[in-house]
Amino acid sequence: MQNFEYYNRTKIIFGKGTEALTGQETALYATRILLHHSGGSVVRTGYLDKVKKSLSAAGVSWVELDGVKPNPRLSLVHKGVEICKREKLGFILAVGGGSVIDSAKAIAMGALYDGDVWDFFEHKKTVAAALPVATVLTIPAAGSESSVSAVITNEAGPWKRGLNEECIRPVFSILNPEVTFTLPPFQTACGVADMLAHIMERYFTREPHVELTDELCEAAMRVIIRNARRVITGAGEQDYDARAELMWAGSIAHNNFLSTGRIGDWGSHQIEHEMSAVFDIAHGAGLAIVFPAWITYNINEDTPRLARFAAKVWGVDGAFYDYQQAALEGVFRMKNFFTSIGLPVSFKDAGLDGAKIPLMAEQAVKFGPVGNYRKLHAPDIEAIYRLALT
Amino acid sequence: MQNFEYYNRTKIIFGKGTEALTGQETALYATRILLHHSGGSVVRTGYLDKVKKSLSAAGVSWVELDGVKPNPRLSLVHKGVEICKREKLGFILAVGGGSVIDSAKAIAMGALYDGDVWDFFEHKKTVAAALPVATVLTIPAAGSESSVSAVITNEAGPWKRGLNEECIRPVFSILNPEVTFTLPPFQTACGVADMLAHIMERYFTREPHVELTDELCEAAMRVIIRNARRVITGAGEQDYDARAELMWAGSIAHNNFLSTGRIGDWGSHQIEHEMSAVFDIAHGAGLAIVFPAWITYNINEDTPRLARFAAKVWGVDGAFYDYQQAALEGVFRMKNFFTSIGLPVSFKDAGLDGAKIPLMAEQAVKFGPVGNYRKLHAPDIEAIYRLALT
Repeated sequence: MQNFEYYNRTKIIFGKGTEALTGQETALYATRILLHHSGGSVVRTGYLDKVKKSLSAAGVSWVELDGVKPNPRLSLVHKGVEICKREKLGFILAVGGGSVIDSAKAIAMGALYDGDVWDFFEHKKTVAAALPVATVLTIPAAGSESSVSAVITNEAGPWKRGLNEECIRPVFSILNPEVTFTLPPFQTACGVADMLAHIMERYFTREPHVELTDELCEAAMRVIIRNARRVITGAGEQDYDARAELMWAGSIAHNNFLSTGRIGDWGSHQIEHEMSAVFDIAHGAGLAIVFPAWITYNINEDTPRLARFAAKVWGVDGAFYDYQQAALEGVFRMKNFFTSIGLPVSFKDAGLDGAKIPLMAEQAVKFGPVGNYRKLHAPDIEAIYRLALT
Repeated sequence: MQNFEYYNRTKIIFGKGTEALTGQETALYATRILLHHSGGSVVRTGYLDKVKKSLSAAGVSWVELDGVKPNPRLSLVHKGVEICKREKLGFILAVGGGSVIDSAKAIAMGALYDGDVWDFFEHKKTVAAALPVATVLTIPAAGSESSVSAVITNEAGPWKRGLNEECIRPVFSILNPEVTFTLPPFQTACGVADMLAHIMERYFTREPHVELTDELCEAAMRVIIRNARRVITGAGEQDYDARAELMWAGSIAHNNFLSTGRIGDWGSHQIEHEMSAVFDIAHGAGLAIVFPAWITYNINEDTPRLARFAAKVWGVDGAFYDYQQAALEGVFRMKNFFTSIGLPVSFKDAGLDGAKIPLMAEQAVKFGPVGNYRKLHAPDIEAIYRLALT
């Protein structure tokens, strides 16, 4: 087991009707804020109005910035930075999913920096400080609501880049599973793939003695899979408890609790980032395409761990006589699961062509080889994309 | 699933040699502190000297108060409060196990209160503030290193009482599993029983849809049981990885992560507290006696959950045709496990007589019936003690 620090100061407020607490929590920090959202379903469903009502009741006023899209854009971040500086706002509330939250985090860093916030994502500058950020989460997926991560797409490339900074961890996050009742099934499914991927990235480690986190990861993955089935392929869209399991699991998947004592992989995320940068495919859908191919490509890399994953998470007989066959059976079941909840598991499924694969593989290693379970260079990544073609 | 708030701001610093970081972490808060410990093995092993060296190197000076005993006493707390007030100390560092930490927490509350700190434990007054507390943990057991709990024994009764206050949650805790190599096997075993009990208290809930926390609890309990066997009944006293699993599991067991969305029981803790108040038995040993009897007494209370516990944690065949038989087989295996690691599972094993059972049962319900899985009154508690007699 590796030495580690674990520290997560985000206050999670979870449950029915909790958006009504937004105002009183925000008022502890500021009375005038940037209110950041997509302008889409959060407006149509009336959820944003509930949040605004709570803010008003607590004496908090806001400047509104909407327009966040999936794979959030640097141009909108620049706009938010400009507003915060001009209006001297000291707090950012993100109402939405991971894209809105990541956009808010980037604005929070840019607001206290004289240069272009993209410098941080290019590792040209280190972050000194950020405005406090809080969230009202509407899509369980990215785990951004209590993480130190932000991922932004610079349209100039397009380049999709992420960074991790303690100062952008949300000070509080409000999670009401009821708001997820109206998510389109495809979006729920993408969220499920994303949270599973966050755990798999941690699970696939070369650290030999991390039994507690191994078991916790496996437990969380089983629960996500079962409850995704209840919600998406069952008649469970309005199933509060199943929605609640997914929403809380999505946070736990990415709050670093499941990565203590181990070094995760994170190669698949890098490989997927290039897919969504080039094709603008939903992150979760890209992950459902990449992960089975990643395991298949790495089938000889600590095969017992891949077989254990198949046994503990996908129910493959743990006494399977052949680790490799067990691991591949696990990949088969994972693909079946993703397909059953409406996700693509290949370029073909998603209607993507492979012409740009060499370019994407080159881009993925722009800052060096990716992954820790096995260091992947451009030819490895190209092979993984090709395994995922059909 | 119940609505919940989850917030745990303790910074955990975990791993080999981490006591060397005590000074720099403490210096962020204060340069003159109360250094609180038992005066026992922490001195003999030289571990306290390592902590002191780190404090000195960071320019931190201290007033020392040793003498903490298991079931920490109110009289020593009073002494600590007096020192903090007289010397105007603003920070308390506990170097030790749960008893030292709980004593430090009580001092921290008393230092900022004009009356007797026992008022808080008697629920006569509410806590307004406390000095910051930090810990260098030496015994994985109580989970006090990142919890809001403190349990103190007032010798006048004797009465053993606990309370939960956010303001006494440690600001940081340093956990080096190496320090546990020299723990006597009985103390390691008591710690194991304590951490298992913390999870069982959370696990036995009437909340029907808490699948994620159920699975996380089961995972953690399995890991504790396996690694306790490695350390205590194997040749694993110096097995760093097994010691590390136990030490981190002990924190997770009580940091409230495993209780989100559910209401735990906590009856067994109350029942045990009277045992250690009357007999001064180690808390963990008392829990090993109480818990099997508690399950046996409650065998008709949501029997499927008791059977699931037997299946998922103790390996009883999950397809067992009779829930009650499965649950009782689980109790049998739990007792065998406790016995195998050197713990008593009855009054007789521990050399305790049952004469004071009616008195203990009355004391346990001083503030009303205990437990949530099933509300227990004095006759119930008396019956549980009697089930544990032999």
